[in-house]
Amino acid sequence: MRISAESERTYLQKVFAAIGFSNENSALLADTLVDADLRGISSHGIQRLAWYVNMVKEHTIEPKNEVKVLKETATSLLIDANKNMGQVACALAMHKLIEKTKKSVVSIAVIRNSNHFGTAGYWARMAVEEGLIGIANTNTRPLVVPPNATQAFLGSNAFAFTFPAEPHPFVFDGATSVVSSGKIQVLDKKNQEIPGEWAVDKERKIVKNARKAEDILATAAFTPHQKGGGVLTLGGIGEDNSNYKGLGNSLVVELLTGILAQGSISADTSVGKHDFSQFLMTIDPSFFGDLDTLRDNATSMFNRIRNLEHLPNTEIKIPGDREYKYYAENSENGVSVDDKTAEDLKRIGQELNVPVPETLS
Amino acid sequence: MRISAESERTYLQKVFAAIGFSNENSALLADTLVDADLRGISSHGIQRLAWYVNMVKEHTIEPKNEVKVLKETATSLLIDANKNMGQVACALAMHKLIEKTKKSVVSIAVIRNSNHFGTAGYWARMAVEEGLIGIANTNTRPLVVPPNATQAFLGSNAFAFTFPAEPHPFVFDGATSVVSSGKIQVLDKKNQEIPGEWAVDKERKIVKNARKAEDILATAAFTPHQKGGGVLTLGGIGEDNSNYKGLGNSLVVELLTGILAQGSISADTSVGKHDFSQFLMTIDPSFFGDLDTLRDNATSMFNRIRNLEHLPNTEIKIPGDREYKYYAENSENGVSVDDKTAEDLKRIGQELNVPVPETLS
Repeated sequence: MRISAESERTYLQKVFAAIGFSNENSALLADTLVDADLRGISSHGIQRLAWYVNMVKEHTIEPKNEVKVLKETATSLLIDANKNMGQVACALAMHKLIEKTKKSVVSIAVIRNSNHFGTAGYWARMAVEEGLIGIANTNTRPLVVPPNATQAFLGSNAFAFTFPAEPHPFVFDGATSVVSSGKIQVLDKKNQEIPGEWAVDKERKIVKNARKAEDILATAAFTPHQKGGGVLTLGGIGEDNSNYKGLGNSLVVELLTGILAQGSISADTSVGKHDFSQFLMTIDPSFFGDLDTLRDNATSMFNRIRNLEHLPNTEIKIPGDREYKYYAENSENGVSVDDKTAEDLKRIGQELNVPVPETLS
Repeated sequence: MRISAESERTYLQKVFAAIGFSNENSALLADTLVDADLRGISSHGIQRLAWYVNMVKEHTIEPKNEVKVLKETATSLLIDANKNMGQVACALAMHKLIEKTKKSVVSIAVIRNSNHFGTAGYWARMAVEEGLIGIANTNTRPLVVPPNATQAFLGSNAFAFTFPAEPHPFVFDGATSVVSSGKIQVLDKKNQEIPGEWAVDKERKIVKNARKAEDILATAAFTPHQKGGGVLTLGGIGEDNSNYKGLGNSLVVELLTGILAQGSISADTSVGKHDFSQFLMTIDPSFFGDLDTLRDNATSMFNRIRNLEHLPNTEIKIPGDREYKYYAENSENGVSVDDKTAEDLKRIGQELNVPVPETLS
């Protein structure tokens, strides 16, 4: 079904308030999910709600806890999310970083005791809307098998990077692994096969059946057990195509998040504290040159790439092109909600006495 | 043939001094090439010498030019390499960044009008030897075809990242593309086939013949012409395995180097100025926690990864494992020099009246 973004927002705000978040934080959380749905990143949209509500019930998330700034300088922040949502800690951190970077050219924040933070791109876009470069990383539940390994250990470890450009900023946002587990969940819900080399079983054989892959991942991510196998690093199944570079990218995120924060590494988030850690950075490009000139130069490079000679019936897309196209379309036509999520919304609405969004005709 | 690292160093210092570099810069340049050869990164070792010497002759490199600091704050640097080698500018920049970061937690440098800077890892390791996280990026000649495209446009755009660990630091260092062009040159010299999906022709068909791939790349990189085709982004030939993520990684480097520096982007370095740009960053992890604890936690994570269940007769390697193993072996046994490079060394030695290194028996 399709619902309007505004009805999605109203519903989400009421649900978040009903389970204990402040009005301000309820509005923030709703905005991060609506924003993801508008951008076509439905894996990080309203379909996460049931998971968030459960984590509040299980006290993995504590909606009333205050986020604490543990250490702060002109260029750096160490923040304790204090088991509240990642979004709550990241909004505080990113507002502070934007201020700091406008004075100090660069600044960084590390967040511990955190939870899911929505899309990484949301935080990196906050910076670029102020004319800054934004970077956001998080570790995740264990999902990814290193080269040659037959067990999941690494997180899908998101990385987002933004840079000013027209008609929209450069927004590179995604898992460092070949795909996020969300992409496999979506295929599973649609009963479709996996088109590429995304997941392997305990013998490191490619898994094409999305249901089977989803079963492997859910066990590794949400239980103390593993069936063996998981998602591949970017670069594929063998070392021939440099899948160790995908490992490197993933480990960079793990070092900047779980290790710097002294939180759990991805491998240890399926049991115990279930905490994630985040790393945020902003850079002021205008230290290096006139912002309009830099934006124009980036725009011109992207246009040259879009117009390179290419295979017939294909397009060359710059990171961000897809999400801004969806944003325009979905703002007009409403966001799409799958059947399983629609049932969740009804159930949660009944439980908390919140009216569910109306289906658009 | 094999030569001792010390004889390589002596020879290189004398050659660099003979073509116009100061004694200090000659020692630095020699060290970056010897270091690469010791670490088994022969693509960035003494085999680059003939290329460097030619660029000095053609005035792409100006060995007597002074590197200039254009702007400087407590956290940031904009540097004009003034057509000297990238190594000369990066040594100045990295020394300053290490000092700045020890006071300010994080600092960044952008370098314009630069040339080749050796391995990215050399600069990132300088930081980690001081207990800091080091990051180094450079753009390069145009070699890489974006997803769906049939023309080279992007550089192989190196990325290095270091983090303290034992028995050696984490050193992730390499091209953001599936491979560097150096790996294809090495296969070509050995008359071997390309084992993976590394390069494509003008119809975006995989090229297995290293000679043919090298011909495509040399034309794109060193002439105003293109034969079509080039190296693939990490993630392979089709979008199914997320090769657009490889594009994203490459563009992040291009934005931080060519665009921030207002130098040439990779696509434009095959003609005209031939300038590269570099981006360096250091972060002080000890702001976030006790350095020994962070190092121990990283070490323990890496050891757990090395010991994950894996396929028989394989190893799980952490970035850096390979280069520190080679470093130990080659320090003992000398570094390997291929026949073509040995001829170059002889020719250059005769021209400049510098005795060539003796072959180890």
